[in-house]
This record gives sequence, C-alpha cells and structure tokens, in this order.
Amino acid sequence: MREPQVDLGRQAVAEALGTGLLVAVVVGSGIMAERLTDDMALMLLGNTLPTGAMLVVLIALLGPLSGAHFNPVVTLVLAIRDRWAWRRGLAYIASQVAGGLAGTMLAQAMFGAPLLELAGQARSGAGLWLAEGVAGFGLVATILVGSALARPALPWLVGLYIVAGYWFTASTCFANPAVTLARAFTDSFSGIRLGDTPGFILAQIVGALLALALTGWLLRPLEEQAS
Amino acid sequence: MREPQVDLGRQAVAEALGTGLLVAVVVGSGIMAERLTDDMALMLLGNTLPTGAMLVVLIALLGPLSGAHFNPVVTLVLAIRDRWAWRRGLAYIASQVAGGLAGTMLAQAMFGAPLLELAGQARSGAGLWLAEGVAGFGLVATILVGSALARPALPWLVGLYIVAGYWFTASTCFANPAVTLARAFTDSFSGIRLGDTPGFILAQIVGALLALALTGWLLRPLEEQAS
Amino acid sequence: MREPQVDLGRQAVAEALGTGLLVAVVVGSGIMAERLTDDMALMLLGNTLPTGAMLVVLIALLGPLSGAHFNPVVTLVLAIRDRWAWRRGLAYIASQVAGGLAGTMLAQAMFGAPLLELAGQARSGAGLWLAEGVAGFGLVATILVGSALARPALPWLVGLYIVAGYWFTASTCFANPAVTLARAFTDSFSGIRLGDTPGFILAQIVGALLALALTGWLLRPLEEQAS
Amino acid sequence: MREPQVDLGRQAVAEALGTGLLVAVVVGSGIMAERLTDDMALMLLGNTLPTGAMLVVLIALLGPLSGAHFNPVVTLVLAIRDRWAWRRGLAYIASQVAGGLAGTMLAQAMFGAPLLELAGQARSGAGLWLAEGVAGFGLVATILVGSALARPALPWLVGLYIVAGYWFTASTCFANPAVTLARAFTDSFSGIRLGDTPGFILAQIVGALLALALTGWLLRPLEEQAS
Repeated sequence: MREPQVDLGRQAVAEALGTGLLVAVVVGSGIMAERLTDDMALMLLGNTLPTGAMLVVLIALLGPLSGAHFNPVVTLVLAIRDRWAWRRGLAYIASQVAGGLAGTMLAQAMFGAPLLELAGQARSGAGLWLAEGVAGFGLVATILVGSALARPALPWLVGLYIVAGYWFTASTCFANPAVTLARAFTDSFSGIRLGDTPGFILAQIVGALLALALTGWLLRPLEEQAS
Repeated sequence: MREPQVDLGRQAVAEALGTGLLVAVVVGSGIMAERLTDDMALMLLGNTLPTGAMLVVLIALLGPLSGAHFNPVVTLVLAIRDRWAWRRGLAYIASQVAGGLAGTMLAQAMFGAPLLELAGQARSGAGLWLAEGVAGFGLVATILVGSALARPALPWLVGLYIVAGYWFTASTCFANPAVTLARAFTDSFSGIRLGDTPGFILAQIVGALLALALTGWLLRPLEEQAS
Repeated sequence: MREPQVDLGRQAVAEALGTGLLVAVVVGSGIMAERLTDDMALMLLGNTLPTGAMLVVLIALLGPLSGAHFNPVVTLVLAIRDRWAWRRGLAYIASQVAGGLAGTMLAQAMFGAPLLELAGQARSGAGLWLAEGVAGFGLVATILVGSALARPALPWLVGLYIVAGYWFTASTCFANPAVTLARAFTDSFSGIRLGDTPGFILAQIVGALLALALTGWLLRPLEEQAS
Repeated sequence: MREPQVDLGRQAVAEALGTGLLVAVVVGSGIMAERLTDDMALMLLGNTLPTGAMLVVLIALLGPLSGAHFNPVVTLVLAIRDRWAWRRGLAYIASQVAGGLAGTMLAQAMFGAPLLELAGQARSGAGLWLAEGVAGFGLVATILVGSALARPALPWLVGLYIVAGYWFTASTCFANPAVTLARAFTDSFSGIRLGDTPGFILAQIVGALLALALTGWLLRPLEEQAS
C-alpha cells in the first residue's frame, strides 16, 4: 500500500487480477473440499488455508502496484480518509467487481461446472449480519492500523486475520462486497443466495466505517507525534 | 511492546479490544468447530489455527499502543519487573477482564446462543493444574525472552507458542486468567465450569512467576553486557 | 535468486538436490497420507502442508546458490528474459529432471515400494489442462513479480502459492514439468499416468509464457523508473 | 546460533530446557491427538503442527544463548567443524539427553500417564533406517546452509523442515538421538521400542555426516569469497 508508481490502467488491472485470483481460490478450494470429504469442518479448513495463503501472496505482489485493496469497502474507506477523486475510486471498484466475477467463472470452468450459476445457500439473519459487521470491522481495522504501525507485515496480517475470520465469525467472514457478489454465482460450498447479498454487503460497510472511526481515534496521538 | 506513546485511556481501550477479539476467536471458533464436525481432534484444530492466527494479528497491531498484554499474568509479571504504579496495572487488568467478557458475548451473539451462560465442562485435577502451570510458564517465558532477544518476531512467537500449547498441555493451554474467566460463560467447546477457574488461574500465576525468576537468571549476563 | 556466485557444476547439483527433495516430499507425503486415512481431503492436506513447507526451506537455502528454480518452465522463462546461453539452460533442466526422478526413487524406497513404477491415475481433460495453465501462470507470475517487488519474501510467497494451488486448481497444481514427469513413476496419491504428462506440461508452458508477457507489461513503468 | 555470550552453565540449562520442551510437545501432542481421534492422519497432523511451531519458538528464543542445538547430532557436527573442546560437547549432549527425558516425564504427568514407561511401538527395517538417514541429512543440511546463507530465517526453516519431515520420511523424522531416546519411554503415539533406538540413532549420525560433507563442498566457493 505504498505510494503507487504506476498509471491507473495498470492499477485497475492489478485490482481485477488480484480480486479474480482471490475469488478463484475461495470458490475453487470450496469445490475441491466438498468433492473430497463429507466432514464440514474439513471442508472449511480446506477453504481457509488456501484463502489465507493466497491473500498473503497477492497483497505482497500487487500491493506495490495498486495498494492491493481487492475489496470495495477497503477502497471506500481509503477514498474517504485520503479524499480520492471519484474517478479513481469507481475504477477500483469496477475492476474488483469484474475481476471477482471472472474469478468465479475461472474456478467453475476448471472444475467443469457451469461458468455462472445461481447459488442456493441461504445466508441470512441477525447473527450472520452481526458477524459480517464484525468481519468488515476487523479487516478494515487490520489494514488501517497495520498500514500505520506494522506495514512490512501487512500481507501476513491480512491473511492471518482471514484465517481467524473464517472460523470465529458465524458467517465465515465474507468481509468483501466484490467477493460476496462473485460468490452468488457458484452453487457450491462457498456460495451465497443472490438475495442474501445486500444484507451482507450493508453489514460489511457499517463495520468498515466503524473501524475507520475507532482506529482514527486510537492512532491520533501517534499521528500528531509524527507530524 | 515498545515504550507506549499513547495515554492510559487509549491503552486500556487497546487492552479491552485485543482481549475481547481474542476471546471472540477462542469461543467463536470453538462453536463453529463443534457444529461442523464430530471429530474432537478436528474441533481442536479448528480452535487452534484461528486462535494462533489472531494472536499474531492482535499483538502486531496493538503492541505499539499498549504492549498487547491481553492477559493479567503478563501485566502482573511486567508490573513486578518494571515497578508499575498500581493504578496502571489495575486499569490494564480491569480492561482485560471486561474485554474478555464482552468477547464471549459477541461470539455467543454471532452464533445465536445466549449472551452469557454458565459452562458445564469440568476441567480439574492435578494433571490439568500442572498443565496450566506449564502453559503460563511457557507463555511468560516466551514473552520475556522474546522481548529481550527476538523482539521483531514476538507476535509470531506468541502465536506459535499457543498453537503448540493447545496440543501439548493437557489443559489446552488457557494460560490467561481473563480468558479463563470469559470462557466460564459459554457452554460450548471452549467452556470451563466457573468453579474450576480458580485452580486454573492459580496455576497460571505460579507458572508465570517461575518464568520471571528463571528467565531473569538466564538473561542476566546479557543485560550486564548491554548496560 | 541473487547473482550466482558459484560455478555451474555446483548450481546443477543444487538444482538436482532441490528438485529431488521437493519430489521426495510430494511423493512421500502422498504415500504417508494415503496409508493413514481414508478421507481424501485429509490426504490432500497431508500432501499440501509438507510440500509448501519444504518449498520455503529449499528456496531459502538454495536460492543464493542456483536461483532455486527446481522447475524447467521457470528456467525457460528466465532464460528467455535474461538471454541465457543454451548450455546453462540445458544443464539446469537436465539436473531438474534427473533430480526429480531420483526424488521419486528415494520416496518409494523409504516407503518400501518399487523404486520406479508406472502411475495409474488418469489426469486429463479440458478442465485439468486449464487448471495447469492457471497453475503455471500463477507460479511464474509469483516468481517474476516477487523477484522484482518482494524479494526477501520470495521463498514464503512461492510456498504459500503452492499451498493455495493444491486446492484451487482442479489439477492440484503440478505446475512443473520435471515434477510432473517424476510423478509418473509412483503409483500412489500423487501419481499421474505417463500418457497424461504431455498435456499437463504443455499447459504449464503456455501459462508460464502468459505470465512472462503480462508481468512484463505490468512492471514496465517501475523498471523504467529504476533505470 | 550467534557467538554465545553466556557461560557454559547457562548454555547447558538452555539446551536442557529447549530439548525438554521440544520433547514435551512431541510426546504431549501425540497423546492429545490419539485421545481425540481415530484417524491416523489427523493424529500425525496434530503431532506435526505443534512440533513445528514450538521449534520455531525455541530456536528463536534460545538460539542467542546456546545456539539452540537440542540435538546431539547437531552438536556433533558443529563440534567437528568448529573444533570444540570435548568438555563443551559432552556438556551439551548430556544436557540434551537429560532434558529430553524430563520432557517425556512432564508430558506423561500432565496427561496422567506413568512418568516413564517402555514404548511398545516397533520402528525398524531398511526403509525406516533410510528414512532416518534422510531425516538427519536434511535437518543438518538445513542448519548448516541456513546458518551460512539465511541466518535470520533459521528458526522458521528448521520448523518448516520438520513439518515436511513428519510426512515425507517414512519414519516421521525423529532426526535427533536425544529425542529418540526420550520417546522410548512413552507408550503412546510418538513412542519407539527401546531396542529400535540404536538403528534410528546410527542412521541419523550417518545422514548428518553426509550433510556436513556435501554442504561443505557446496558452500566452499562462497566461504573463499568471504575470506
């Protein structure tokens, strides 16, 4: 998440590529896991480790190019904090959404499933919305505090946070509107019914904004000392 | 665990937030695991990896703010060694206990369980008390030696120690009075009967004090060379 | 992947040793896993973690000697980009192939199986070929971008990429012609029918060349700024 | 494995403490795993991850004090290469053996088993001896090359090597005479029949000496350039 040195076109490609590969891992490892075992905990473990591992890789590789958001709520929060131009924020989010859908198609194609199909898995209710709020809060807090106080470790911290999130949030930590939408088009382990995505996305946004407010307050003395 | 640069109010919030999220992971991943599988080893694995991962994240993020104790025996040992004022030590411990209880409530709410409920799981006996003594000894020794000789790796070392501790100590390495108390209020995989908490906490304190004594002796020549 | 400081003879030994130990882990952990459990997801997990772990070790140790390719498509791509002499590239690839076959023999011998035996496991079809293309693309992109932007973390990034790849690519991410060929001579979990190897290898080469092209375009502005 | 700055007494305590905790993890996590599941692969996984994790912790913490050998073949190889006095080598090895036995007793006590009991698990035959040779070779090569070329990562590299070793060597990578002997006194998952220990230890020594010879040859040009 260093100062970008490449043009917006390359940044958009990096965001699309990163989000696409992330979704390909989430969806693909979920299909792999559900084909290999009947144990649901083992399925979640087979979904968790690849996702966390790939996040570390993608953030380390693409962070220097685009900041490695791969996530509209991350872009939203940074655009608010750093006063981005509308054009740049929308280019990021459009790339993330498009890349995410392409990632689902890639995973489906590799496993011989329809390129896009509607998911049947219901994910709704107060507990899950609370969980997605927590998921979004924790992810954005990790990124904001980590960028300020532990920048070289940031790829690891995000990957490890997601490893924890898959298990401690009742919703398995979607935490990302672009990924949530992309997961509506696979009828497999990681899928979510299209009609359930707005609740998840709204909760993620609320959690992210709370993280922006709380971490801003927590870090204020350090920023004043630095300036 | 650098020299804190923020006020005690923010430090207390950091301790409460860190302990709360740690407990939310311990309790939440335990509930997730026991709902997904019947295999007890897989449950423990599904409890271990998220806990270790979240510890790395929380210590890396909040260490620069409060020292990232999240644990009354760590605060006790550092307060003894570094001659803290009573007020500061009590503020830390109160924040940890309050944060821990809030963490249990958060996990219970996400999974649709009662906010607080008494745990039924008996954890008592000489073997388990010995195990908690070992758990507290190892955690505090890791923190004290790690702070002196391997500070940049400290978040990792604590997370990895807990990963090992969950499996090699017969008690699954509670190692933390605030977390132990918080786990008395969930009747799930990670729970402990309220009446069994004093034995665990006493053993943790004994182990921590032994670690303070032994590591003080081990490191003395290095400190003399440094001064 | 620093500038080699040792002679080609030692580099060839390093490539043979590294590829051999990598294959010994892939084949050996596959045999171990299939002897210990009936759950296919657990077999894949028991194959994934040792492979990822050993890759980190081998790249960290042998990278300073030979660049730690252990993979003919990596050598091919770097030979194209950096205009290697034919002799050097062929020495690398020959060492990798020979080392890989020795690695299979070593694993088979440790587990009391025939030193070399033809694998019976069919791995063929459009989905798997697409998956191997993705596998090769991702591995080579990780190495090329990682070498440019995150060099100290490169051993970790490659290991983590393979951990993800084993689960999200439908083919379990062979991604390496020397390893693919070596796996044709074990009739166990990690085996591949000899007749199916050309499809896999061709797909790996296509993916690797795509990665060379795309990452060259992505990184061009940074290289121009550096020069 | 930096130049020790503490006296031999403290070094011996560090070796005993480190070997003891290592054995406590190997034996303790094995007992935990076999009590929690019937799946042998899950048992090995529950033995692997804690062992690897604890090795990273112990080497990072105690390396600056004693070099963190915890292993008579490591001491043997370094004593040969660096021409140690007999007294120092014997003090190290005696501490490792005593610490290892204490580690078994600690694990047995925590799990309510007899402090010392003879193991019944047969581990013998050409395949396993070859495997222990490979295990010892790989461990010592990792330490010797890692010390020379990747010193800051050494704790991680050893831990990751053992994670791989538990799965790809048919013998589950004992790789350590002090640990092998200590494991003869627990009749649980990690045990080995006392009469089978000499074959394992002999193979470990042969592998270690091969590693000393091969890595000496591989690294010679770099050492000449450095001097």
